[in-house]
Amino acid sequence: MSECYYSPAGPRDGRITLGGAEARHVSRVMRHQRGDKIVVVDGLGTEFDVVLEAVRPNEVVGRVLAAATGRREPRHSVTLALAVLKGDKLALACEQAAELGISRFIPLKTERTIGRLSAARLERLQGVALAAMKSCTRTVLTVIEPVQDLARLASRAAEYGQALVAYEDEYESGLDNVLDRRASSLLLVVGPEGGFAPDEVRVLNSAGVKSFSLGPRRLRAETAATTVVVSAMQLLGDLGGRNAPEQP
Amino acid sequence: MSECYYSPAGPRDGRITLGGAEARHVSRVMRHQRGDKIVVVDGLGTEFDVVLEAVRPNEVVGRVLAAATGRREPRHSVTLALAVLKGDKLALACEQAAELGISRFIPLKTERTIGRLSAARLERLQGVALAAMKSCTRTVLTVIEPVQDLARLASRAAEYGQALVAYEDEYESGLDNVLDRRASSLLLVVGPEGGFAPDEVRVLNSAGVKSFSLGPRRLRAETAATTVVVSAMQLLGDLGGRNAPEQP
Repeated sequence: MSECYYSPAGPRDGRITLGGAEARHVSRVMRHQRGDKIVVVDGLGTEFDVVLEAVRPNEVVGRVLAAATGRREPRHSVTLALAVLKGDKLALACEQAAELGISRFIPLKTERTIGRLSAARLERLQGVALAAMKSCTRTVLTVIEPVQDLARLASRAAEYGQALVAYEDEYESGLDNVLDRRASSLLLVVGPEGGFAPDEVRVLNSAGVKSFSLGPRRLRAETAATTVVVSAMQLLGDLGGRNAPEQP
Repeated sequence: MSECYYSPAGPRDGRITLGGAEARHVSRVMRHQRGDKIVVVDGLGTEFDVVLEAVRPNEVVGRVLAAATGRREPRHSVTLALAVLKGDKLALACEQAAELGISRFIPLKTERTIGRLSAARLERLQGVALAAMKSCTRTVLTVIEPVQDLARLASRAAEYGQALVAYEDEYESGLDNVLDRRASSLLLVVGPEGGFAPDEVRVLNSAGVKSFSLGPRRLRAETAATTVVVSAMQLLGDLGGRNAPEQP
């Protein structure tokens, strides 16, 4: 699959309509014509094989030939909550996590958070998630939540099958020691450059969020975020191989 | 350990000398004085507790109080060979891999490699490796090799306990299926944005480099590089927890 398009509305009466940037890309950049076949995803896990019936610069309409759900998606729903980082680092971490297959990204306000998340930066994260979905041929668009504080995150921890936080003062348990392989949804929490304050970790732990160690080397926050997502996907069998689900 | 300094020469007659940027940092930035204690690493795995005897802008001399080897280092020697990528992506991948604990980084020339590695870019990678060693409190400096072509890499594959290549047309085996946990040294090969040509993979396979899959989602090359290193460290027990070696 070389190129795919995004239509959050999905099909109506067996037809899908693309507008805006997606329509321009189909008509102007790729110069598709009536009768050509393209792939459209709804960002919720379904992809459609579509034959084009009308190609205009601002609107492209196609008839759905086939639909499939969940292709190339991990079996587990993973949410990454990451402290807001300065500059491009937040977008980088969001991009890598979206490629790796997370469902949801929560920018987190913590005691030692330095960066601020303006409306423009939040919008940029949404663009990053969309580009990542397309480049890695996912069918689910990573949902970017508004900034949350730690108390709010803690209050919602019970909504997940398991919730875990990477903590540099935890020495006993690694992710493979604490990860519950049977949980179908997972919240992974990663702190800012200066780490979580001990009080913050107590708040999380009290809400049932278990601490784990990433080992003795002190990782930069954006590296820690990617490391946590890769490790979880690896341990859950969602990084390919014989334990993995269906392949493309 | 908040700050450490780098002296590749190591101690002579029980004393360590820092010059250049390291001496300036001790004397000018940190404003250390005679009698202060600092930590110096030799980049080969040994760290020294040092008491300063002379602090000058260009030369700092200290007496070694204690030495320890291998702290905060993975038990396995991991080499990452990564196709040269455009722009900052190569440096980003090198940085994350160095933080995660690789020993050696090999920039690779492949059929579909687009970026070129000038002498200035190679030197920049060395700076990235040094900064990563310091920021993540490692004691081993990741060795940056000159650019190699694939034939040369293949001819040296037998020098490693195991050699593996991430290949997008491999579906059967994931890293956890092929990784030999008893190998003490590991070569991990990751291709460019457009992937390896089938011929190139055949050359690697013939030299004993086994293919593995990173799963059905198509990762950007720099994300794939970090993913491969994290997965290997996780599966080898080098990312913390009860299977991990000594903690700080």
